[in-house]
Amino acid sequence: MKKVKFAVIGAGNIGSFHIGYLNDGKVSGCELVAVCDTNPAKLDNIQKQYGDKFKLYSTDEEVFQDPNIDAVIVATPHYDHPVLAIAAMEAGKHVLIEKPAGVYTKKVREMNEVAEQHPELTFGLVYNQRMNPFYQKVRKLVQEGAIGEIRRTNWIITTWYRSQSYYNSGGWRATWKGEGGGVLLNQDPHQIDLWQWICGMPKRVYSFAYFGKQRDIEVEDEVTAFVEYPNGATGVFVTSVSEVAGTNRLEIMGSQGKIVIENNKLQMWKSVIDEAEFNATWDGGFGEPEVWKIDVPMEPFKDDGHMKVTQNFVNHILHDEELLAPGTDGIKGLSISNAMHLSTWLGEWVDLPIDEDKYYEELKKRIDSSKEKETADQVLDTSTTY
Amino acid sequence: MKKVKFAVIGAGNIGSFHIGYLNDGKVSGCELVAVCDTNPAKLDNIQKQYGDKFKLYSTDEEVFQDPNIDAVIVATPHYDHPVLAIAAMEAGKHVLIEKPAGVYTKKVREMNEVAEQHPELTFGLVYNQRMNPFYQKVRKLVQEGAIGEIRRTNWIITTWYRSQSYYNSGGWRATWKGEGGGVLLNQDPHQIDLWQWICGMPKRVYSFAYFGKQRDIEVEDEVTAFVEYPNGATGVFVTSVSEVAGTNRLEIMGSQGKIVIENNKLQMWKSVIDEAEFNATWDGGFGEPEVWKIDVPMEPFKDDGHMKVTQNFVNHILHDEELLAPGTDGIKGLSISNAMHLSTWLGEWVDLPIDEDKYYEELKKRIDSSKEKETADQVLDTSTTY
Repeated sequence: MKKVKFAVIGAGNIGSFHIGYLNDGKVSGCELVAVCDTNPAKLDNIQKQYGDKFKLYSTDEEVFQDPNIDAVIVATPHYDHPVLAIAAMEAGKHVLIEKPAGVYTKKVREMNEVAEQHPELTFGLVYNQRMNPFYQKVRKLVQEGAIGEIRRTNWIITTWYRSQSYYNSGGWRATWKGEGGGVLLNQDPHQIDLWQWICGMPKRVYSFAYFGKQRDIEVEDEVTAFVEYPNGATGVFVTSVSEVAGTNRLEIMGSQGKIVIENNKLQMWKSVIDEAEFNATWDGGFGEPEVWKIDVPMEPFKDDGHMKVTQNFVNHILHDEELLAPGTDGIKGLSISNAMHLSTWLGEWVDLPIDEDKYYEELKKRIDSSKEKETADQVLDTSTTY
Repeated sequence: MKKVKFAVIGAGNIGSFHIGYLNDGKVSGCELVAVCDTNPAKLDNIQKQYGDKFKLYSTDEEVFQDPNIDAVIVATPHYDHPVLAIAAMEAGKHVLIEKPAGVYTKKVREMNEVAEQHPELTFGLVYNQRMNPFYQKVRKLVQEGAIGEIRRTNWIITTWYRSQSYYNSGGWRATWKGEGGGVLLNQDPHQIDLWQWICGMPKRVYSFAYFGKQRDIEVEDEVTAFVEYPNGATGVFVTSVSEVAGTNRLEIMGSQGKIVIENNKLQMWKSVIDEAEFNATWDGGFGEPEVWKIDVPMEPFKDDGHMKVTQNFVNHILHDEELLAPGTDGIKGLSISNAMHLSTWLGEWVDLPIDEDKYYEELKKRIDSSKEKETADQVLDTSTTY
């Protein structure tokens, strides 16, 4: 294989974005050969913009049957991610799916099982924030033990401002039936994935989610969740779509120091002795270990994660480069967000791994009473988001 | 009355601090005439340090019967604060009590009722952090509506590092019987008071408190609490005594902006239009209001709050200056911390005002099984804390 031949399935907001950079040749070793959407208006848009550059398909079956296509990018509404990934792999296509991995882990587990049966295929997930050098650096520091054992984590991620107008731009948006969740499913998968990628999986979750609080939507638009980790550490995750000066601040407190990422700055503090050791030996009453503030040099952040994910995916296919965001990893963050939903629905602690049947049962109740909004689907400019 | 004549009751850590600055003449319009402690060793210490400058009393009754004493500062263990405040007011003395106002609101309410019967007496509380210009400024900004209506609050206050050695310095410390609580009662009353002073009282609390998690103590050494306010806003309060690079960060998110205090810096962001109005009128899909980052000039913080509280207390007695930290305000913060305890004990939401009898009943269970530690009482140097 000289070049990986891509089809993009779904020509909505994020699909159009993938089409754009692939068409611009921003990813080497590949070419875009087909675009698929079930909505004829969206295909018309693509044809108007790109002429006859790509084959245009109105069903995914046609994509999967096209022997000229090596790999597909799935950029449809969330529920279809695992469905189409399974179909793609069964048709022998490499597959790169948009986040989230799906809406509920029961289905995502099915997808992962199919992936295991196809080790010859590359299965990736667009966790573009894993390409962010800040989070890569923090992960490395934490894994190397730079701040000792994790004691407490805290992520406030409220920079996901979304207006009512945004929610009205698609009938499926922010409905249980069409999207299966709100900010946790659409915007936060990045941060929830990074949170577990850096700090590990929690063992249980207690969550305070609010549904349609500041927006006229069925799903959650504000959440505060509290977690406990296996080692006894605790964590807080706060998110909202309606804050005008939103915060994106990750704090990780270890037994020997602290790392904070906020305002595109990584700050680290490190004590000269682990807190546990200091505490065991100090006999002076008041007093605490000496702490150093450390400037960690960082390259300025470039918002090119999507392209890097796709490049890494292509390189994995062509050259067996290590895949940084394997598709099978998607179940981890989704388990956490499912647990956040379930905890609020039940008003109780939810242990991980979650009871997948219970989750689906509760979700199904909400799907059954869900109403698709009457609104024309629009393709929005995503150039200012990720 | 020319000069207010003070007695300090309790010559432990914080009592010694009050004695020191009063003796140094740091507060005008007053003089220290007596010191009282039930522990003869502590009175000996005072005599060694100050000679015969003050009358030394070994019982509080003697203080209350001394007609030469106008006002008392109560710096005893927490349980005695309301007991001694009541006795002082009934003896016709002005009274300034250390924080917290007490251990449980049932008793503090009694104290407040006695205070109401004595409008001729000045009743103050050493909430020295109310004198901090940062919090005064934030309160003013919030009250003036600079950031619109409060939507979310978040206080991470983990700079209260305390080693096991500190806890071992007094047999009463960090026991249910002797202290009645841990970090919430001893260190956090400042922040919990400021939180409600600036943002208002929550309507209900759900709390995750850990007792003796990182220290060998009976009481809580780490807490994360979630609150809801009457207007639907939410809040998080995180505290711990075992973090070596502790955080002290207050974030207040309003419908029109955000204020953050961290690392002795006050930062404000303000949008040009209230979020609710923007959301109601915007029709462009993605998009959010323009936000201004505003530098608010602040004088550097001086750690002289204790003296300012005492000066304000003296000025209120002598010149009727407005009392910035009235003793009767103490019940507010204490209600919140009692609610945090109670929520974890019961594993459920606790509404405010709390059920005071229920709280005392639960506390009493813990007092009854509480064990005083066998350790010599030490007076520690408090010059590095507040």
